[in-house]
Amino acid sequence: MFQRAKRSIALLTATATLLSVGLPVEQASASAAYEPNKAKNVIMLVPDGMSASATTLARYMLADNEKGTEKLTIDKYFTGFAKTRWDGGPITDSAPAGTAYATGHKSLAGALGIDANKIPRASLLEAAQLQDKAVGLVATSEFMHATPAAYAAHEEKRSNYATVAEQMLHQDIDVLLGSGSAKVSAADFDILGTAEAKGYKVVKTKAEMESASATKLWGDFTNTFGEKTNLSYDIDRIPAEEPSLAEMTSKAIELLSRDEDGFFLMVEGSKIDWAAHANDTVGIISDTLAFNQAFEAALEFAQRDGNTVVIAATDHGNSGISIGNYDLTGYDSAPFSILEPLKGATKTAEGAMALLNSSKTNTNEVLQAYGIQPTGYTPADVNSKDRTAKNNAKVNALIDAFKSSPSTANLVKIMNQLAFIGYTTGGHTGEDVPVYVFAPDHVSKKPLKGLRDNTEVAQFIAQTSGLDLDAATTQLFVDVTNHPNYPGAQIDSSARTLTLTDNDMTLKIKANQSEAMINDEPVSLNGQIAVLVNDRFYVPQSALDLLKSQPD
Amino acid sequence: MFQRAKRSIALLTATATLLSVGLPVEQASASAAYEPNKAKNVIMLVPDGMSASATTLARYMLADNEKGTEKLTIDKYFTGFAKTRWDGGPITDSAPAGTAYATGHKSLAGALGIDANKIPRASLLEAAQLQDKAVGLVATSEFMHATPAAYAAHEEKRSNYATVAEQMLHQDIDVLLGSGSAKVSAADFDILGTAEAKGYKVVKTKAEMESASATKLWGDFTNTFGEKTNLSYDIDRIPAEEPSLAEMTSKAIELLSRDEDGFFLMVEGSKIDWAAHANDTVGIISDTLAFNQAFEAALEFAQRDGNTVVIAATDHGNSGISIGNYDLTGYDSAPFSILEPLKGATKTAEGAMALLNSSKTNTNEVLQAYGIQPTGYTPADVNSKDRTAKNNAKVNALIDAFKSSPSTANLVKIMNQLAFIGYTTGGHTGEDVPVYVFAPDHVSKKPLKGLRDNTEVAQFIAQTSGLDLDAATTQLFVDVTNHPNYPGAQIDSSARTLTLTDNDMTLKIKANQSEAMINDEPVSLNGQIAVLVNDRFYVPQSALDLLKSQPD
Repeated sequence: MFQRAKRSIALLTATATLLSVGLPVEQASASAAYEPNKAKNVIMLVPDGMSASATTLARYMLADNEKGTEKLTIDKYFTGFAKTRWDGGPITDSAPAGTAYATGHKSLAGALGIDANKIPRASLLEAAQLQDKAVGLVATSEFMHATPAAYAAHEEKRSNYATVAEQMLHQDIDVLLGSGSAKVSAADFDILGTAEAKGYKVVKTKAEMESASATKLWGDFTNTFGEKTNLSYDIDRIPAEEPSLAEMTSKAIELLSRDEDGFFLMVEGSKIDWAAHANDTVGIISDTLAFNQAFEAALEFAQRDGNTVVIAATDHGNSGISIGNYDLTGYDSAPFSILEPLKGATKTAEGAMALLNSSKTNTNEVLQAYGIQPTGYTPADVNSKDRTAKNNAKVNALIDAFKSSPSTANLVKIMNQLAFIGYTTGGHTGEDVPVYVFAPDHVSKKPLKGLRDNTEVAQFIAQTSGLDLDAATTQLFVDVTNHPNYPGAQIDSSARTLTLTDNDMTLKIKANQSEAMINDEPVSLNGQIAVLVNDRFYVPQSALDLLKSQPD
Repeated sequence: MFQRAKRSIALLTATATLLSVGLPVEQASASAAYEPNKAKNVIMLVPDGMSASATTLARYMLADNEKGTEKLTIDKYFTGFAKTRWDGGPITDSAPAGTAYATGHKSLAGALGIDANKIPRASLLEAAQLQDKAVGLVATSEFMHATPAAYAAHEEKRSNYATVAEQMLHQDIDVLLGSGSAKVSAADFDILGTAEAKGYKVVKTKAEMESASATKLWGDFTNTFGEKTNLSYDIDRIPAEEPSLAEMTSKAIELLSRDEDGFFLMVEGSKIDWAAHANDTVGIISDTLAFNQAFEAALEFAQRDGNTVVIAATDHGNSGISIGNYDLTGYDSAPFSILEPLKGATKTAEGAMALLNSSKTNTNEVLQAYGIQPTGYTPADVNSKDRTAKNNAKVNALIDAFKSSPSTANLVKIMNQLAFIGYTTGGHTGEDVPVYVFAPDHVSKKPLKGLRDNTEVAQFIAQTSGLDLDAATTQLFVDVTNHPNYPGAQIDSSARTLTLTDNDMTLKIKANQSEAMINDEPVSLNGQIAVLVNDRFYVPQSALDLLKSQPD
C-alpha cells in the first residue's frame, strides 16, 4: 500500500490508541520482493462479452490491414480457453462470471462475490489488500456493474445497486475510475458524498484525472450524452473531455505502482457487452479496439516493470456474432471489402441515434454517422459487386424502415445486412472464451494453458502473485450467525446490523460497511466490510479480535 | 516407406534397368532417427467446420457431465488460435483452408494445392514422401473432397472431381480410407479399377478393413443409406458394418507406423461441416464427439510412440452456431437442462429423414428419432420450466410445419428452437479457430502458441518433423512452360499432355499422372505427378532428369 499507515484496525477518535490486530503486515511486505514464480503486481483485464468474432472483426479495422494480416496486441498473448458456465446453467451473466474470475468460485445467476451456496468468498482484490497491496478498479460502465462489483462486493442480487455501491465505497479501494454516481439516488446512498468523506479525490474530467496524484482517487465521469452512468463508446468519445479505457488504465497503474508492496488492478472494457446486446457491430469493434489499447497500456508497464502479470479474459460470449450470415450465399468468394461499410461509421448506434432531433427529421444524418448511405445502394455503388441485387434490396428496405421508424434496433439491422454480420441473440452465449496472458520470465504460465474453467483463472492469478484466496475468506468473512463461539450475536435483518457482546464489550456493525462501534466508540475496520448474505451475517475476524485485544 | 523399394524412378517394363535419379534416399532415411526438436511421425486431424460452440456443446453430451465439468480429450491440448482468411476474403472454403494447412500457402476460392498466384505448392504429404515416409489420408467424406484433396492434388477447381481423383490415385498414397467411388463416373475416371491396377487392396467393409495388412490399402466405404459417396454420421453408423473415424485412424496408424522412416497422416472429420451447413445440431455433436475419439486414437499412439506430433485444427467456422438464441430471454438463469432434448436424439437429421416412408405418413417416427415429442410440448413436460409458453408454442408450430412438410430444414428448426441453439448461416464464418497440439517432450510447441495464421500451422509441422516444403515444391513442380532450359516443350492443353525432346530423347507426360513415356517406353514417376494448372505444365524434376541420366 501507499505511504500511509499499513492496513490495521484503528479507532476513529483522534486520541485513540492505534491498534494492530493480527494482520500479517511484515509478512505481506515480504511479497514485494522478487520471488521465483511469483509476480508482484497483477493487472486483470476483462473484455466483457467479447466473442471470438469481435477480435477477428476488429483486426480487419486496423489501418493498412484490409487482408487481416496484422494482429491485435492481445492476439499475441492468447494462451487458452476458459469455460464460462455458471453453477446452474450453460450461459452465464457477468455476475457469476465475474465472481469466478474474482474469487475462483462458481456462483449463481446475478450473484456477486458469493459461491453457489451463497457463502461470501474473498476476491483477489481483497486478498491483495490483506498483503498491503494497492488495489484499483477501472470500468467504462457504472462502477457497481457486475464485473467490477464481483471484486469488491458480496451480494445475492447485482441489481441492489445501493448495497453494492455502499460495500464498494467501504472497501478502501485506492483507485476507482468509472462512472455511476447517477445510478443510485443520494437518498438511498450518497455515493459522492461518502467518497469525499472517505478521503477520495473525486475527478470528473479527463484533465482532472490526468493531473491527479491523490493516494485515493475516484473517477466519476460523464459521457458525451451528459449521463453520469457510463462512459462513451470509444468511437463516440470526445478525446479532450473523456478519458479512454487505456488512459484510465495508465493513470491507475501510475498511482497504484507507487505502492512498494505491489498492486492488483482490474480493468473492464464494459461496453463491448452492451454493444453486443444491441447487436451493434460498430460498437463492438469500437470498444474491442479500445480494450486492445488498454491491454497495450498494461503490457507496456508490465514489460518495463518485469514483475507484473497481465491477464485478459472474456467473461462470456454475447450475441452469437459471426462474419457471414444467411444472406451471404457466395461466402467463399466474398472479398474483404464486404466488411468495408463498417469502416465508414463515425459513431456507434448509440452515438448516431443521439444525433436524432426531436422531430426525427434528420434520419439521413443519423444514417451517415453510422456509415450508411441514406439514399440506399445500387449495383453501381462501390462494393456492389460484393452483394447480390437481392441483398441490396433488403438493405434499401431496411433503410426505408429506419427512416419511417428510427430506432437503434432498426439502425443496426442495416449495417449487419450490409456487411453480412450474423447474430443469434441479444443475450449471452455459452461457448468457451479466450484467455490472454503476459507473464514475466520468472512466472510460469503453464497452469493456464489448454481449456480451463473460469474459476481456474482466479487460482492462476492467486498462485502467480502469492495471494491466498481461502485464507483471505477465512480472515474476512466469519459467519457469526448461530456461531457457538459468539452466542451473544444478535442480528437485525431489517436494520442490517449485528450486535455482539463478549468479554464485557459490545461490538456493533452495520452490514456493507467497514466501520463498527466498540462500546459506542467508532472503530474503522480499514476497508474490511461486514456483509449480510442469505440472512447470515459475516464479519472480518479483525473485528471479532477487537473484543479480545482491546487494551485497557 | 514400407518394405518395398525406396521411391525412385523405375521403368515399368520388367527388363528395364532400375533408375535412381537424385532422390535423397539415404538422407531421407536419416530422418527416421530420433533428432532433437524433430518428430518422426505427424498426425494432422482436421475437424472440418467445427466452431467453438460445437466443442462446448459436445462436452455437455458426455456421460455424467450434465454440468460441463468434464473435458473432451482435445480440450486438454488446446494451444492457440488460427486465422482462417483465404487470399481474397475473410471467409474461406475448405479448399484454400486445406491448402493453407497442407502447403503453408494462402490460396484462392475453390483451389487445391496451389498458391494465390496459381502456382502448385508441395504439401506436407508430398514432402513426407520425398523423405520416404509412409503417408495416409482418412476422411468421412469422399476422398477427393477439399480437405484430403488439398494434401494430394493441385487443381484450380475443387469441383473437378475426375481430375482430383486421378491425381490422388497417382500419388502413391499408402493408406487412403474414406468413400467416394460413386462420385466420379467410371467413364470419366475409373477410380476403383485404377486403384486395383496400382496395387491397392480395396476394402469395402469394416471387417475387411480390420483384417487388412496390405502395404497399400484403399477403403471405399458405403454408408448406412447405401451411398458410396461418404460415410455415415457417427450416430447414424451401424458399428458392425461401417468403421468409425477413430477406427479408420487406428487402422491407418497401424499400417503406416510399420514404416521405419516414419509417416504423415491426415485425418478429417469431414461431416461436422456438413451438419453445420444443415444447421443440424445433433449431427454437429455426433461428429465432434467422433472426431474427439479419433484424436484420442492418435494421441494414444503418439504417447506410446514418443516420436509423433499430433495436431488438430479446425479449418474454418461454420454456421455461427451458439448456445443461446433470441428466444432464450432468460438466458442467465436457464438451467443445463435446456440442452437435454439434444440427448434424446438417436439419429441426425439425415438419419432421421432416411426413415421417412414414401407416402410420408410416419413423420412421428422421424421426429422421435431426432429426439422430438411428436405430440408437442406442454407446460407439464419435463424441462417445460425451462421454456416460456411462447417458446413451447413456437416449438409446437414447427412440429406441425414438419408434419405437413417433412424436410431436413424443417426438422432441424424444431430441435434448435427446443434447445435454444442459434445459427446465423448455412455457410462458413470468418472467426479464428482453435488449434490443438500434442508434441513429445523433445519437440517444442512454442512456435504455434498465440494467434497464428493457418499457413503457419503447416510451417510448424514442417519444422517439427524436418520436412522442407519449399525444397519439395522445387523438386516436384518444375514449370516447363516457356522455360529457357526446355525450349522443346510442347504442351497440348486439350489433351493435357507435355512432349519434351532433349538430348535425343523424348519425354511424354500426361497431366494428373505419375507415369511417363521415354522414347515410347513407359516409366513410373513413382507417385510424383505432373499437373497442368492455369495453362502451365509442371513436372517433377526427376522426370526431367530422365532426359539427362538415361543410361545407354
